[in-house]
Amino acid sequence: MATAAEADAMRRAVVLAARALGATSPNPVVGCVILDASGEIAGEGYHQGAGTPHAEAHALRAAAGRARGGTAVVTLEPCDHTGRTGPCSQALIAAGISRVVYAVGDPNPDATGGARTLREAGVDVEAGLLEDAARAGNAAWLHSVKYGRPYVTWKYAATLDGRIAAADRTSRWISSPESRADVHRLRAESDAVVVGSGTQRADDPHLAVRGVEGAVQPLRVVVDTEARAVRPGARVADDTAETVVVVADDLEPDRLAELPAGEPWGLPRAADGRGIDIPALLAALYERDVRSVLLEGGPTLAGAFVAAGAVDRVIGYLAPVLLGAGPTALADAGITTIADALRLDVTETERIGPDLRITAVPTTRAHKER
Amino acid sequence: MATAAEADAMRRAVVLAARALGATSPNPVVGCVILDASGEIAGEGYHQGAGTPHAEAHALRAAAGRARGGTAVVTLEPCDHTGRTGPCSQALIAAGISRVVYAVGDPNPDATGGARTLREAGVDVEAGLLEDAARAGNAAWLHSVKYGRPYVTWKYAATLDGRIAAADRTSRWISSPESRADVHRLRAESDAVVVGSGTQRADDPHLAVRGVEGAVQPLRVVVDTEARAVRPGARVADDTAETVVVVADDLEPDRLAELPAGEPWGLPRAADGRGIDIPALLAALYERDVRSVLLEGGPTLAGAFVAAGAVDRVIGYLAPVLLGAGPTALADAGITTIADALRLDVTETERIGPDLRITAVPTTRAHKER
Ligand SMILES: NC(=O)c1ccc[n+]([C@@H]2O[C@H](COP(=O)([O-])OP(=O)(O)OC[C@H]3O[C@@H](n4cnc5c(N)ncnc54)[C@H](OP(=O)(O)O)[C@@H]3O)[C@@H](O)[C@H]2O)c1
Ligand SMILES: NC(=O)c1ccc[n+]([C@@H]2O[C@H](COP(=O)([O-])OP(=O)(O)OC[C@H]3O[C@@H](n4cnc5c(N)ncnc54)[C@H](OP(=O)(O)O)[C@@H]3O)[C@@H](O)[C@H]2O)c1
Repeated sequence: MATAAEADAMRRAVVLAARALGATSPNPVVGCVILDASGEIAGEGYHQGAGTPHAEAHALRAAAGRARGGTAVVTLEPCDHTGRTGPCSQALIAAGISRVVYAVGDPNPDATGGARTLREAGVDVEAGLLEDAARAGNAAWLHSVKYGRPYVTWKYAATLDGRIAAADRTSRWISSPESRADVHRLRAESDAVVVGSGTQRADDPHLAVRGVEGAVQPLRVVVDTEARAVRPGARVADDTAETVVVVADDLEPDRLAELPAGEPWGLPRAADGRGIDIPALLAALYERDVRSVLLEGGPTLAGAFVAAGAVDRVIGYLAPVLLGAGPTALADAGITTIADALRLDVTETERIGPDLRITAVPTTRAHKER
Repeated sequence: MATAAEADAMRRAVVLAARALGATSPNPVVGCVILDASGEIAGEGYHQGAGTPHAEAHALRAAAGRARGGTAVVTLEPCDHTGRTGPCSQALIAAGISRVVYAVGDPNPDATGGARTLREAGVDVEAGLLEDAARAGNAAWLHSVKYGRPYVTWKYAATLDGRIAAADRTSRWISSPESRADVHRLRAESDAVVVGSGTQRADDPHLAVRGVEGAVQPLRVVVDTEARAVRPGARVADDTAETVVVVADDLEPDRLAELPAGEPWGLPRAADGRGIDIPALLAALYERDVRSVLLEGGPTLAGAFVAAGAVDRVIGYLAPVLLGAGPTALADAGITTIADALRLDVTETERIGPDLRITAVPTTRAHKER
């Protein structure tokens, strides 16, 4: 049984891990707290990015000699393999740690086995402490390991009656400054931000993170099948963050000449002929180490993601506004009758300034059936 | 300064008053608690319906001799006029009450003056204790006194993306049993429930209250300009509650022959020719002692109410469901550009089973401008 001090340490480790959300892919976020033999905090750390030391290494360094005979409390099962850094299991053993408490087992076949190695070395190992909290903190990564594609959050901002703009397409400040700031936090936590060519044309969005200290910029992705929406001078083409334009793989090369960002990605068209194949897009992003995607719309592309069963979380910013006309937040998702509706569970609701932020995830059944 | 016991008594009085919401029109809801000379609760009561004793009378009867030298704590200024019952000011004086604490002044010119009469009789009078809570409890009535028309709550049930049905019009159980039960509570608190001819045709709704103990049935109102939607055998035509069909005042009498409910109301058509004039409808309801209206849709009629500036509160039941197609919760409200949007303040959000109930009221400015 874990002690109260270990539970406190795990809560702390979960908080530490979250600091690096959006910065560690393709690795998970991990936090670690070392308690000395008397149960006092001796050191802490978190994984800050692929190719840099793991959380355990940071925490062990901070604890130094006090690690001997102590307990390592860590959000994820310590790794057992030599990647760009040495195996954490060995580092913990070498430091004289006598007990390891972790929250979530490592689902990654390359990295798993840490618990066994530790046990074989005589270390007392306990798994599962605050597992749900730690899982929630690593939701995108765990999902991507399981399904082999990035975790997709679809974000939209709409009125109470589901509109994203008025009939004349004006939409300025449907959502509040507070909600817009919150979106920058979401971007910072994501590896990539994706929009369709319609949004590119209508809004010329920037898609980079502003106002979030220490944020790693996401990859900006514009899905522009015909290479016609991203024009020279487009705001996504600046050097604030990397940008990729996704085009059909059958375009004539001269069509790509005017694209202002770097090398475009050529991907297959969707089977129904409407734009790019969504699974191919997700596979290409995964290949590029993207584990979490923030889909920022618009309604047409979001509809295609829903139709492909590729929305894993929905975050809606609802502004207390009524319009009665204008485009809606979600367009054709291939759902024609109520029995086929995508059903979700609301996991969180929060007031953001005058708006309401609703977070929901597909019900387990909905997810499985798709 | 009111004492702690008086504040507790006022909280109790507000709760008592709320018991009769939907049952007292054209009167307000009122609750009263009598504290004896030592500050103990000696009696309590609430107004149960027009023509029956006022809250003070119930409470005085319960307190009997213990009222002498005591304090009456009441949510609304005691009335001063002889209507169907005697003035409460006199009853309090006659019972030997030495202090009266009330929350909200009576805005009704016929009834006001109670405080002065009491003071002139040497009673110590204090106003404004827990005024906001008491106002909220009487919002519909206070509003109707101020504007001379019923207070209108527009209720809708929609998906997260603002749809009330799928593309093929199927909509069964967009909202949960819990939300549907909650709507019966709203109906019970309302004097009238209103729908348009489109909803009548599509749903053949019953519109009466089920499952709310002691509820007074609201007046059921179908706005059916051409007298073509309410057919013989319509569920609203049963005798669970009164029903009125509102038709244009220029229809040939033989068109009304087949209407199954009682005498229809003939009212003028809207200036733009689309259905019945909303202000005329509200005036007719007010005339009929209706102080609170629950507008249950559909989207077309709700759009007309919004356009007329006649929505005072919005209650949306949002189901965590995505459709991407299908009719939206609110149709044409005469708003074409974002600057003209109806802006609201969210006053409450609550989880109702799997759904989210959002309550919002037009911002003060929005209300004034309309
Ligand atoms: N309030 C919000 O949250 C929000 C967010 C974003 C956008 N918006 C608004 O939404 C509007 C634009 O929306 P939109 O629906 O026209 O554009 P969109 O969804 O951004 O882009 C749609 C376009 O993406 C391309 N596309 C590529 N692959 C696709 C696929 N598999 N399925 C579907 N489309 C694919 C298609 O054009 P090609 O194949 O020709 O490239 C399609 O027309 C703008 O007014 C914008 O302001 C609002
Ligand atoms: N999810 C929900 O909360 C909810 C609630 C209610 C209804 N619904 C759904 O909504 C659909 C029906 O909606 P709807 O929009 O077709 O019908 P509706 O709003 O119920 O009725 C519209 C009709 O009311 C009449 N009307 C009378 N005076 C009017 C005025 N001043 N302005 C506008 N219309 C006036 C008009 O027809 P006439 O002039 O010919 O009489 C008009 O066509 C159904 O599918 C129903 O299931 C959903």
